[in-house]
Amino acid sequence: MRSINRILVVWFVLLLPSLSCHDTGVKQKVSSSRPPNFIVIFCDDLGYGDLGAFGHPTIATPNLDRMAFEGQRWTSFYTGASVCTPSRAALLTGRLPVRSGMCSSTRRVLFPDSAGGLPDSEITIAEALKKIGYSTGAIGKWHLGHLSQFHPDQHGFDYYFGVPYSNDMDRVNDSPPGREVYREPKMEYWNLPLYRNRTLLERPTDQNTLTKRYTEEAVTFIKQHRDEPFFLYLAQSMVHVPLFRSTGFTDISRRGLYGDVMEELDWSAGQIIQTLKNLELDRNTLVVFTSDNGPWLTYDEQGGSAGLLYYGKGSTWEGGMRVPTIFWGPGIVEPGVIMDPGTTMDLLPTFVSMAGGEIPSEVQLDGSSLVDTITTRSPGPRDTVFYYRGNELWAVRKGAYKAHFLTRSGYGEDKPVAWDPPRLHNLDADPSEKYNISGSHPEVLDEIRKVVDEHRFNLAPGKDQLEQRLKGAQLNLTWEDK
Amino acid sequence: MRSINRILVVWFVLLLPSLSCHDTGVKQKVSSSRPPNFIVIFCDDLGYGDLGAFGHPTIATPNLDRMAFEGQRWTSFYTGASVCTPSRAALLTGRLPVRSGMCSSTRRVLFPDSAGGLPDSEITIAEALKKIGYSTGAIGKWHLGHLSQFHPDQHGFDYYFGVPYSNDMDRVNDSPPGREVYREPKMEYWNLPLYRNRTLLERPTDQNTLTKRYTEEAVTFIKQHRDEPFFLYLAQSMVHVPLFRSTGFTDISRRGLYGDVMEELDWSAGQIIQTLKNLELDRNTLVVFTSDNGPWLTYDEQGGSAGLLYYGKGSTWEGGMRVPTIFWGPGIVEPGVIMDPGTTMDLLPTFVSMAGGEIPSEVQLDGSSLVDTITTRSPGPRDTVFYYRGNELWAVRKGAYKAHFLTRSGYGEDKPVAWDPPRLHNLDADPSEKYNISGSHPEVLDEIRKVVDEHRFNLAPGKDQLEQRLKGAQLNLTWEDK
Repeated sequence: MRSINRILVVWFVLLLPSLSCHDTGVKQKVSSSRPPNFIVIFCDDLGYGDLGAFGHPTIATPNLDRMAFEGQRWTSFYTGASVCTPSRAALLTGRLPVRSGMCSSTRRVLFPDSAGGLPDSEITIAEALKKIGYSTGAIGKWHLGHLSQFHPDQHGFDYYFGVPYSNDMDRVNDSPPGREVYREPKMEYWNLPLYRNRTLLERPTDQNTLTKRYTEEAVTFIKQHRDEPFFLYLAQSMVHVPLFRSTGFTDISRRGLYGDVMEELDWSAGQIIQTLKNLELDRNTLVVFTSDNGPWLTYDEQGGSAGLLYYGKGSTWEGGMRVPTIFWGPGIVEPGVIMDPGTTMDLLPTFVSMAGGEIPSEVQLDGSSLVDTITTRSPGPRDTVFYYRGNELWAVRKGAYKAHFLTRSGYGEDKPVAWDPPRLHNLDADPSEKYNISGSHPEVLDEIRKVVDEHRFNLAPGKDQLEQRLKGAQLNLTWEDK
Repeated sequence: MRSINRILVVWFVLLLPSLSCHDTGVKQKVSSSRPPNFIVIFCDDLGYGDLGAFGHPTIATPNLDRMAFEGQRWTSFYTGASVCTPSRAALLTGRLPVRSGMCSSTRRVLFPDSAGGLPDSEITIAEALKKIGYSTGAIGKWHLGHLSQFHPDQHGFDYYFGVPYSNDMDRVNDSPPGREVYREPKMEYWNLPLYRNRTLLERPTDQNTLTKRYTEEAVTFIKQHRDEPFFLYLAQSMVHVPLFRSTGFTDISRRGLYGDVMEELDWSAGQIIQTLKNLELDRNTLVVFTSDNGPWLTYDEQGGSAGLLYYGKGSTWEGGMRVPTIFWGPGIVEPGVIMDPGTTMDLLPTFVSMAGGEIPSEVQLDGSSLVDTITTRSPGPRDTVFYYRGNELWAVRKGAYKAHFLTRSGYGEDKPVAWDPPRLHNLDADPSEKYNISGSHPEVLDEIRKVVDEHRFNLAPGKDQLEQRLKGAQLNLTWEDK
């Protein structure tokens, strides 16, 4: 009953422009008489502080800044994990990776020798929306399994164009040693394959044109599906090292190579928005821009910035999992700054609610619909955020308070530090996690302990997908092998 | 000749709206036929990262965010010093404080026992503009001398309302000890006087209503001078500790007391903008919003945030002297993000150029007119920034590069660290000053050394105003004593 009410609210909001507006009335009505389109632009290793709208001084992101101003800038939006594979699983399934088995105590992400991937039992956003008539496309980095049974076409996507895993994987032996390879990266240092659906297009992939080609593919997908509801998952390979950008973006940014790459991503977002406007789909499409985790600080100037947040990728400090997030859609989104927590796991229930579909009941979701917050700026529904490192719970946010049970840098040599009592921060008052207030807030720690107990009691971890490895001849298996 | 060209450009830009626009054409023409008004909103200890538009996650600044989007967000804008008194002197005179003597090796700012102040030989923005018919008002914190000869009325201001120095000065003996006094501050802990012109209104000042009353005074000043060109210098006492806000802003911010205070400052800026709009002065007024120095980090949650910049108030790291700056004025300012360096010392030549006045030739200015950048977004004129601590030069920026000769925290117990070769950063690529690249850029260091030699050669330091102290009966002297 509640979800029907929500849908009615959304439809009403979506219809508003057609009731009030000027000379494009007829077209507006047509486009408003069908459920909205959804586009997720998911960047890789983009830090909280790397957009102009989130405070970066020297990276020019005019398109994203405008989207942030015209739409909603979410300042406490989280990923499901601080690294790639589990974060992607969380977004697409609306579930903590520990449930799907897409995290592990052994390996942090999938590698080219991995045998695992997103289990068939998971229900992705694409599957949930496809069920109610959406066209679905995935463009970009997948990183949820590169064997036949894990291909995007097995997870609800009608169309796919992209690379199976991170752009620093399958590195060739005679590339420059260690991290030197990232200084002046060349496409031939990585034997990265590029696919259209299951067809191998290139190997190694020309990474210089990757953002450009993803963007062209995205624009084409939107054009092809302009007359039907669609879901487009655009998972940019950038700004993950090695950093590449196309000719037009060479040496354009004050921030150097990292800035060039970011400014091409900004251009890319601008192309998406312009396409929506040209096709008059802008008032009936919700665009979400976010990142899979924090900046990879160990790469120095080739890594991003978490702004005022502490630490970055790989850690459960805020810099690892809080990401710069924008919801844009002038016919749908009530503009403003949203400070309530949200997560990528909320997107599945949000989209399905907005589309008038049914929230999957076969699986335990970790997301809540953000529809009311997006459309009316009402308070967010989420009170807790779980910060996992691998398959272990390292920290929990409840309301403004975050308790760290364990802390560690993302990739350093340092050992984990166990906190007893847990290290406690008020993230609203102390977003940089400077001041441990556990001594003065025992009642908050008690509440958080209850949340943890309840969470653990209800948790059924999935079979570990990341520890499974290919052996011998299997090592050559890919999506091409049915 | 060059300045005449500039003025013509400005007038043309100012006239544009009246040529193009709708039903308020007549009024527009009237308002455009006179030189623009100038308003400087100068906050105290506001950090680079403390506005939404500069990336803060939990301080709500919708008015300032809108100003930043509609106007120019300057991301590399500097103060003339990292503490109060010299920074204010720099802004009003367009000169490095070392020239006016408003900095010292002994004391960092003026105190209630100080005998010095801004010398009569200095030419302030108010004096330069008054000369060509502007009405001038200073509202808020002065901190440029509290003896008769240093009153704002001696420095070109027709009207004054405010407090003579910082709101943490003249603390009473029986206030809570040490920093405890800031935890739950009460007005009676500081014997701060409030003046209208030279008349003492209150002592101690009710600081709770200070932002509110400054704002009311500013609105009144604007209304009174709506029919003539005016310059309003609104120097907010907040967000300098002790933090106070009026009833309507109690416990409204997620960021706690500091956020409450910031949100009242945001409201205040909104009132100014709304007043300009109501009076149809918005297209003929340039509003500059900035801060006197970085956040006072030693006060923990009662201090602000420098965002991704390193360190804060009192230091010559970026966090000490780079401040969040907005230029707003829909009829004057070409919207965008400006990444070229600017400083508060550029405001004097900017305003005077824009007003069609003459840049003072009696004194050596350190500012350059930003008119072209403000009106057309052309590259900024400034290539160098000097970072003084007291009367010593600690660092220099040339282009993107900054060389530190000395570093030290703002207020810590730590000793200065001398760097030879100087510590070098590319601020565009490395705004957080993490990576010392002096080893790989000897040619940049050579260039910077030349800049320093030339600067020193041309420098005539003023008589030290900060070391001069009152004695005995003199200690009671104030503005009231002519």
